[in-house]
Amino acid sequence: MKEKSQLLRPTDESALALAGLLLSKIRWGALATLAPDGYPLTSLINIAFDRDGRPLMLASRLSDHTTNLLADPRCSLLISDPGKGDPLAHPRLSLTCNGQHITDARETVRYQDIRADFLEHHPKSALYIDFPDFLFFRLDLLGARLNGGFGKAYQLTSSEILSLTACKP
Amino acid sequence: MKEKSQLLRPTDESALALAGLLLSKIRWGALATLAPDGYPLTSLINIAFDRDGRPLMLASRLSDHTTNLLADPRCSLLISDPGKGDPLAHPRLSLTCNGQHITDARETVRYQDIRADFLEHHPKSALYIDFPDFLFFRLDLLGARLNGGFGKAYQLTSSEILSLTACKP
Repeated sequence: MKEKSQLLRPTDESALALAGLLLSKIRWGALATLAPDGYPLTSLINIAFDRDGRPLMLASRLSDHTTNLLADPRCSLLISDPGKGDPLAHPRLSLTCNGQHITDARETVRYQDIRADFLEHHPKSALYIDFPDFLFFRLDLLGARLNGGFGKAYQLTSSEILSLTACKP
Repeated sequence: MKEKSQLLRPTDESALALAGLLLSKIRWGALATLAPDGYPLTSLINIAFDRDGRPLMLASRLSDHTTNLLADPRCSLLISDPGKGDPLAHPRLSLTCNGQHITDARETVRYQDIRADFLEHHPKSALYIDFPDFLFFRLDLLGARLNGGFGKAYQLTSSEILSLTACKP
């Protein structure tokens, strides 16, 4: 039987292109946070990227994933859109991150930049983006795993992901 | 500002119907397991149900979620298919579970029943279901959270979920 490490392929141009396609096409993801009882908790979030390509999320202070991230920043985000056929034949990307609460005051340039970046990706969030109980997290990337379908597993660095998501000059 | 507990609505027929629709329509999910480094890990899995309605997953021994579940059964499964529009306006279900490795020998009736139940939901898994490195987990339900869109949150019991997924006589 093969060892796990043998299953990882070297990250090449086509793997990066596939990860880039997922990141440009899909604007939502399954976030896993750590609940106080020690269990992971999955929830659906909208994803945007700041100008440096770092993932952003907007969440209500009343949601469990917000409570979890404020207590423990460790999280994982699955980006995938299985569509038709065997879901496992579709590509997907798991990002390992630390969720950092954006604590800047709302009138600051930095907060307004983040707000603008988020709105650009999610125009419909204008309905709730300014609610007082909503807050932003930046998901600081530690690494990523790309699964391109059966037998096509790659490990990507945070720099490789950021090179795909950052604004091109 | 509202307290969290005030946001949960009492589980009524329409909430159960919505959960039932998600569970009957969607055959894949985002699984969160606990990695050895303490971070959660999200990955894509195919979902089936046994005759009693308990979720089943088939996984390769070489995948990280298998390693994680064998070391720590705590997991969470997000079932959702956002489609068009604001993803957060779409319903989704988070199941909290313990993943139990099915250790019965392959020739036993119990294993063959599970295999048949899985194949019924995922005919295409016939391509790999009998590979020696593939194994089944039953996801024993502890509870569920249904989010039916903005402001529509419900807590469901494992019995309520099983009443939706079990084979009707």
